[in-house]
Parts: sequence; C-alpha cells; structure tokens
Amino acid sequence: MSNERTEIATLGEFGLIEHLTKNIELQNVSSILGVGDDAAVIDHFGKQTVVTTDLLIEGVHFDLAYTPLKHLGYKSVIVNLSDVYAMNAIPTQITLSLGISNRFSLESLDEFYEGVYAACSAYGVDLVGGDTTSSQKGFIISVTAIGEVTPEKFVKRSTAQKGDLLCVSGFLGSAYVGLLFLEREKKIYLESPGVQPDLEGESFVIGKLLKPEARKDIVEFFAKEEIIPTSMIDVSDGLSSEILHLCKESNLGCVLYEEKIPVAEEMKKAAFKFEIDPTACALSGGEDYELLFTISQSDYDKLILNEEISVIGYMTEVEQGANILTKGGGKHPITAQGWNHLAQ
Amino acid sequence: MSNERTEIATLGEFGLIEHLTKNIELQNVSSILGVGDDAAVIDHFGKQTVVTTDLLIEGVHFDLAYTPLKHLGYKSVIVNLSDVYAMNAIPTQITLSLGISNRFSLESLDEFYEGVYAACSAYGVDLVGGDTTSSQKGFIISVTAIGEVTPEKFVKRSTAQKGDLLCVSGFLGSAYVGLLFLEREKKIYLESPGVQPDLEGESFVIGKLLKPEARKDIVEFFAKEEIIPTSMIDVSDGLSSEILHLCKESNLGCVLYEEKIPVAEEMKKAAFKFEIDPTACALSGGEDYELLFTISQSDYDKLILNEEISVIGYMTEVEQGANILTKGGGKHPITAQGWNHLAQ
Repeated sequence: MSNERTEIATLGEFGLIEHLTKNIELQNVSSILGVGDDAAVIDHFGKQTVVTTDLLIEGVHFDLAYTPLKHLGYKSVIVNLSDVYAMNAIPTQITLSLGISNRFSLESLDEFYEGVYAACSAYGVDLVGGDTTSSQKGFIISVTAIGEVTPEKFVKRSTAQKGDLLCVSGFLGSAYVGLLFLEREKKIYLESPGVQPDLEGESFVIGKLLKPEARKDIVEFFAKEEIIPTSMIDVSDGLSSEILHLCKESNLGCVLYEEKIPVAEEMKKAAFKFEIDPTACALSGGEDYELLFTISQSDYDKLILNEEISVIGYMTEVEQGANILTKGGGKHPITAQGWNHLAQ
Repeated sequence: MSNERTEIATLGEFGLIEHLTKNIELQNVSSILGVGDDAAVIDHFGKQTVVTTDLLIEGVHFDLAYTPLKHLGYKSVIVNLSDVYAMNAIPTQITLSLGISNRFSLESLDEFYEGVYAACSAYGVDLVGGDTTSSQKGFIISVTAIGEVTPEKFVKRSTAQKGDLLCVSGFLGSAYVGLLFLEREKKIYLESPGVQPDLEGESFVIGKLLKPEARKDIVEFFAKEEIIPTSMIDVSDGLSSEILHLCKESNLGCVLYEEKIPVAEEMKKAAFKFEIDPTACALSGGEDYELLFTISQSDYDKLILNEEISVIGYMTEVEQGANILTKGGGKHPITAQGWNHLAQ
C-alpha cells in the first residue's frame, strides 16, 4: 500500500467516479454503453441474458485485517462470475456499487479497483456501471454480473435425473483451512502485536481463500466437448449444502463417496495442523467457487478427458435420501453445515 | 406494523429467501428463469438491454425513524426504474440484495417486500434474483434494474444539440421540503417524545419524499408521439446538478428560466413555512425522480400535448456557460449544490 493519502471527500462523488472509472476499456462488442450514464446498454441479439448479484459486507463476508484490498476487489468479481458459469453461461458485464466509510483513502480504493480490473481483464468482462456512496460503518460491496448463453443451453439446479453422475471441479475445502490460519494469526497478533505471522508453507490454502478463481475453463470444456450438464451449481457454501440444493430442486436423492471427494495434499497437511478432518472441510467449508454438476452417464467418456473434474457420486430416487458413504464403510445422511451468515 | 415478531435466524438463509420470494409471479415473457438458481435468465432477442444499480444505506439514504418499510421497499425499486426510463427504455426485471441486522424481524422484512412487490406490479417488472445476508449495522439495500429498448433508441446524456429545448416532467423540489418536515418532527420527537407530530396538510410533499413514482408515462408518451429526446437524465440530485451533467456530457451551455421551473402550489406553501425559496428547493433539493431531457425544436408541437412536461430553457454553445435567468432579471451561473452524500 502506498503512503499517500487523499481524502475521498476532496473529489466529490462525481469526481470520485470519474477517477475510478477513467481507465475502463470495454472488451465485449455487446457492451454498447458503459459507465457514465443513468444505465449501461447491452446488446444481446440471439442470446439469452443471465444476471446474478452478491452483497459483501465487511465484518460478515471479509475481514480487512488480513484481506488485501486488491485481492478483495478481485474476489468480489469472481464470486459473481462463478454464479454465471454455474448457469453454463459466459459472463460479459458487471456493475459494481460501493459503500465506503471515510476512513478509506483514495489510494485504498484504487487498490480495490486494481483487483476489480484484474478480474475483469482475466475473464473478459466489462465493468459497465455502478453506484458509489458513503457508509456509516464498514465497507459494502454489491456486484451484479450479466452473462450470455445460447438459447436453451442454460443449466438449472432442478433438472438432474436419476442415475446421473455427480461431479465437481478442482479441489474442495482449501479456502476454509486458509481462513482458519488467518483467523488464528489475527488472534495471536491482537494478543501479542509484536509476533510475526507464521503462515510459512500455507500459501496454497490462503491463496484459495484470498484469490479464488471462477471455473471458466470447465464451461469452455463443456462447450468444446458438447456436454450439457443436467444440473449445475457453484460451491460457495460447502459441498454438502450445494448437493442438498441439487437434490431438493431436482426432487432426487444421491450417493456421495467420501473417498472420491477431491482434496489437495496441501490442504490435508494444513487441516491436520488444526486436527480437523479434511473431508469435513470439503463438506462444510465453502468459498471454493468450484462447479458441482450432474451429467448423463452417456457423457462419461467425454468427461474423463478433463483431469480437473472428479466424479463423486450419482443421483438416486428421492426416497433414498442424500447419503454419504464414508471411507470406513458407513452410510450417513448428508447434512448442511455451511457458513450460515444469518446465524452468526 | 403487526405485533408479531419472528426472529429471522429461526428460518436460516435459504428458508428466509424461500419465504420472501414464494409469491413471485413473473410478468414478462422475457423472464425465463427467476429467483432460486445461481442466476436469472432473461431473453432479449432483438432488443438492447439496459442495466442500472443503486445502493441505499440506512443513515445515509434513509432514516427508519420516519420511513415506513413498505414505502422504503417501493422507493428502492422506483429509484432504479427511474434510471431505466431515463435511458428511454422499459424496465423488465430487477434483482434485490439486502443486508439486514438482527434487530429486524421477519414481519418488518415482509413489510419491506410488500412495497417491493407493489412497485414491481405497478411497473410491470419481475423480481428475478438477489442475495440476502446479515449486516453488522444498519439496513443495506442494493437494487439492479434491467430494461429493454429498441436498438438505437436509447437516449444518452451526451447527445444534446445546440438550440435544443430543455424540458422536465412534473414538479420539482417537493421531496426535499417533505424531508425538512420529517427531520423537524424527528428532532422535536427526540427532544420531547410526548409531542405528536404536526404534519397536517403536508401529505403532498411528504408523499413525494416517501413514495415517489418513476415517469413511465413520459417514456410511453415519447413512444406514442415518436419523440426521441436528444439527451435525458433523471432528477435525483437536484435540477442544477442534472442540468450541469447534460451540459458537461454534451459539451454545451444552457439558459434556464427560473419562472419556468415547475413547482407545486403545495410545495411553495410548505417551503414558505421554512422561510426558504421554492426555486432553491427545486434547483438543489433532489430525489424528485422526474425526467430532465432535451428535444429538437421541431418536436415542440408534439411536446405541448403533454401537460406534465415543462419547457424550462434551451441549450447553447459551451462558451456561453450554463446560466439561470432569474425572475428579477438577473443572470447567474448554475452551480451544483445537490445532496452530496460523500461530503456528509
């Protein structure tokens, strides 16, 4: 962070917006009009439009004590793009609204926007509008993402079929373990401010928490291999919670194999330092932004071409319930224990 | 407000979303998929899509001491629809994200949503998605509105021409005077809680503040009469501020006639009780959600068919600046003194 400090009030609201958006270059031909008018204009001839929105609040969704603003800007975009990919759609535009308290300097905001623009650039998305206002307390971020999908190719949560394979991308549970490390170091720091943080060797799990990516590659793989998942959702609240969503919405049950749940070696080692079960982290951790989906068994041969995808179970009739078969041979109902922000 | 009180935590996040959205009926054929998946799906074949967003924060944008929640829900939608109309577009969908502190009961939230649904119904708009989370302090509302416009008929701020007529819909300044009354009564109440509020006869100005409407009728009138304004903006920060936006973006000056600025009789009387100038309220008050626009002089004959529209000036070369000609015959540069939330 630079040492300069420009008070935001010196710019005024419109000066601030101008400052923050002056470097935007629109990337999508469908972005006809961007920031600077009452609304943006988007051209979607022959495509269907997908729209999703997320509200991130300081102290609830992120802690600025250990979250670099640039990473936060990046992640604020990613969590929304992930929802667009979970519809089998391609994100094209975002809007960004911020509530900022007066303890924020212009330099801090610039860092946040650096992350926003980095994500926009990495995923080919245009920032086309927003709103900037003051907040009485805390930093508030609201992102809306818009995407395109070829008509009738969008994938809902409710259309899985009995016998479909249950699949997930990447590794699960890492972000949660990263959070445990950062929370521990914050506690130590607050108790003994002189102690240096001991995060040696944990850059993998911490990176997964602070700078997640959305699975653009998986949706592109589906298009290339002409796979249309029968249902899909992104993993933001933990695998259990998302599986139960697919089951409930599709009115099905499922069998999940514990041994098939993909967890990274780095995450396992890190979880053992906290004496917690890696499987529990994967099931209940959340913030993975991987894609959980079902495919028809006939697509299995295409699917195995992609090493980033694991088959973790299959869908059953609703009467059989949603169950996990543990490594020890036990069978238990899957229960949602995701991060429930409302219960905090 | 009913006397029941259900703690929101008893429902859980997903239970809450289900409760709040169970009565949604989609009104637009373009709303292909609504609440309940990762993203909504919208069909916009042959139309251009307009998108706008606003973030409203308790203590900054509204005061729950005198704002009924139902009105707040209604207004949260209206302020976004107004931005869509200001593009000469028709709003079709909204997303709504809320941050709620635990002092809110389910019944309070229901009241808020009643207002949201009332606005959606009155303007033919579908609620298609959102996010609900807890906030550490205060009520936070983020609305994104999406609309359609026939290709190339959207109206920007930057395309006014020299000689165009400057026009505005409705009356200006009323909401600001309504706010003065409510702030006065709140102060009296806080000092002497026994005193009953004295808002007799001020329902007009208070109604304009608490339950504004968006000018759907004006955009429909344009379509019927085949008028395309040369530039347009909605009046949210006060007439002065919005005129300066049109001038700056279009690189023009203007002449504004004080005597032509439309103010309601009820507002004039109310303003005099505070010994303030009705013109000042119109110029700097804000929250009117009227449409300010420019039209070619050749459209004047069509325009005068609509009694809701006032011609208040005309556009000049940029060198002449943006000036107001006062009733007394003076000529002064127009200065923006709108509500600047960031300077608070």
